[in-house]
Amino acid sequence: MPRRSIAPIPPGALDLTGEAVQRRRHLQRIAMQHLADAGFSELIPPTFEYEEIFLRAAGREITESLIRFLDLDGKALALRYDFTSSVARVAATTFASAEPPHRFSYSGKVFRQGPERGGQPRELLQVGCEVIGDGRLTTDLDIIRLVLGLLAALGLTEVQVNIGHSEILRPLLDQLDLETRASARNAIDRRDVSGLQSLLAQAMPDGSDLLTLPFVIGRRAILDATLADAPPATRNGLQHLAAIDDALTPDERAHVVYDLGEIRGLDYYTGLHFEVFADGVGRAVGAGGRYDDLMGRFGTPMPAVGFALDLGALAGAAR
Amino acid sequence: MPRRSIAPIPPGALDLTGEAVQRRRHLQRIAMQHLADAGFSELIPPTFEYEEIFLRAAGREITESLIRFLDLDGKALALRYDFTSSVARVAATTFASAEPPHRFSYSGKVFRQGPERGGQPRELLQVGCEVIGDGRLTTDLDIIRLVLGLLAALGLTEVQVNIGHSEILRPLLDQLDLETRASARNAIDRRDVSGLQSLLAQAMPDGSDLLTLPFVIGRRAILDATLADAPPATRNGLQHLAAIDDALTPDERAHVVYDLGEIRGLDYYTGLHFEVFADGVGRAVGAGGRYDDLMGRFGTPMPAVGFALDLGALAGAAR
Repeated sequence: MPRRSIAPIPPGALDLTGEAVQRRRHLQRIAMQHLADAGFSELIPPTFEYEEIFLRAAGREITESLIRFLDLDGKALALRYDFTSSVARVAATTFASAEPPHRFSYSGKVFRQGPERGGQPRELLQVGCEVIGDGRLTTDLDIIRLVLGLLAALGLTEVQVNIGHSEILRPLLDQLDLETRASARNAIDRRDVSGLQSLLAQAMPDGSDLLTLPFVIGRRAILDATLADAPPATRNGLQHLAAIDDALTPDERAHVVYDLGEIRGLDYYTGLHFEVFADGVGRAVGAGGRYDDLMGRFGTPMPAVGFALDLGALAGAAR
Repeated sequence: MPRRSIAPIPPGALDLTGEAVQRRRHLQRIAMQHLADAGFSELIPPTFEYEEIFLRAAGREITESLIRFLDLDGKALALRYDFTSSVARVAATTFASAEPPHRFSYSGKVFRQGPERGGQPRELLQVGCEVIGDGRLTTDLDIIRLVLGLLAALGLTEVQVNIGHSEILRPLLDQLDLETRASARNAIDRRDVSGLQSLLAQAMPDGSDLLTLPFVIGRRAILDATLADAPPATRNGLQHLAAIDDALTPDERAHVVYDLGEIRGLDYYTGLHFEVFADGVGRAVGAGGRYDDLMGRFGTPMPAVGFALDLGALAGAAR
């Protein structure tokens, strides 16, 4: 009996009941307590903001992903695309005269839509945090540790954090003209080695590094092997990852993989970045990194690093 | 320095930080645990639904209070006006074949706007619950007990629940023509005794009950005094309140006042209804009641009773 047709919900809207709610609330409670214990103070930003806030933080290319509407005064609003934009706004305004670093946590829904509408959820339940005003390598390390500790606190043991660094591929890609760069990024994202090869054969006769580095993925040994004959422009990024690895405990290191070819966050991240995977979930359950350009877009330049986890994805992880 | 002008938020949007967040989260956690212990199962409905869902439940007169926007396919959406509408939809669809009664709890934001935009918040953080499919008087009593127990669990001692019943004024008002009825309700809502008097002098020569009952407010004694010579049409409602009072403990009774003139929910409630007040807060911190007509609007007629508390208002209550 098609009762749903009596009272349906919009495509991609979340209708959570029973066990699905309990599991998410359980994960949310533990995660927020873990972040509070780590010195993070929770923010609850508005559910809708001027769309300008999200575009300023994440770039004009997300415009079509926003769920937008006009306010009574004709101004363009959008449902929260991410928490990071709002946290940056709050840090630049309400906390403008407070001494950094700021440590903020958050939890709630973000709203996104794809052009295809293919049954993709338009609401995601997240928890996350940001450290704003602290650019030290030890803070990058703290964030990696925090992610690993948080996943352990959530009872998830079969997890992997894929760590990359924007200053490995970016300096190489920057040597290409804009159009070729876009095509190369596209080929790297698709893992299309032969496409990349024919592209670079013309554009970058000495393109061997850009042909190999994007496909380097592995543990500490691959960092050392890559560093042995890495082009100078990539050494800072590689050494940063090696320094992170040096500081990890064996237990932590067991969950870390270095992935030099992660290209999607390249417009956003300015250093270390990572994606989190959990056994049983066919997509990343979280992502984060350093975005030292973000706060400047809100008038108070300072470094920033953070991450967000997707509670819906985590709820599906093997335990 | 007008940093806020760099990155403002829309009028009426909530930007919560620090202690304001902690207080709300503390209250929310205790309230949701209290409801879980009382056998309620949490729902997380979508943040936006087809506006039809909210209009069907609460009536066309709330249209202007909705924060509305069009979906990609041109259908009219609205941000969650209340949880009750969504809970009714879920009960009538997802739980259509489950055995009632259903006991659902919820917590999150609702979104409302007034025509004046006078700095009123457009986001409210609520917790609440509904019992669907149980029309017994003992369930009304359970709900009153639950409210009082919840307020005590939240550490609020200086609280008052003002209880009314729709079947006291409604049968009297129904004797008036539509236009006079609207004017009379308006006068009662404004506590305009002389306006009501001149209105009824023409429309209802025998209008003395409608001149006195709306202004009756007090404890058990006023129920008994009113019952002594109440018009027959009002006796059911009055006796229902007296039966509630009979069942309350002295401690519970100390927080209860009967208010026969509460007129605002009259289109919505079909029996017992109440507002919750707390010392130090200049508005109701919560409201609830019985709305046995609601589920029928979603195709599965059955009784329903529930309430919602405003966590922002509760956060300001004296402790």
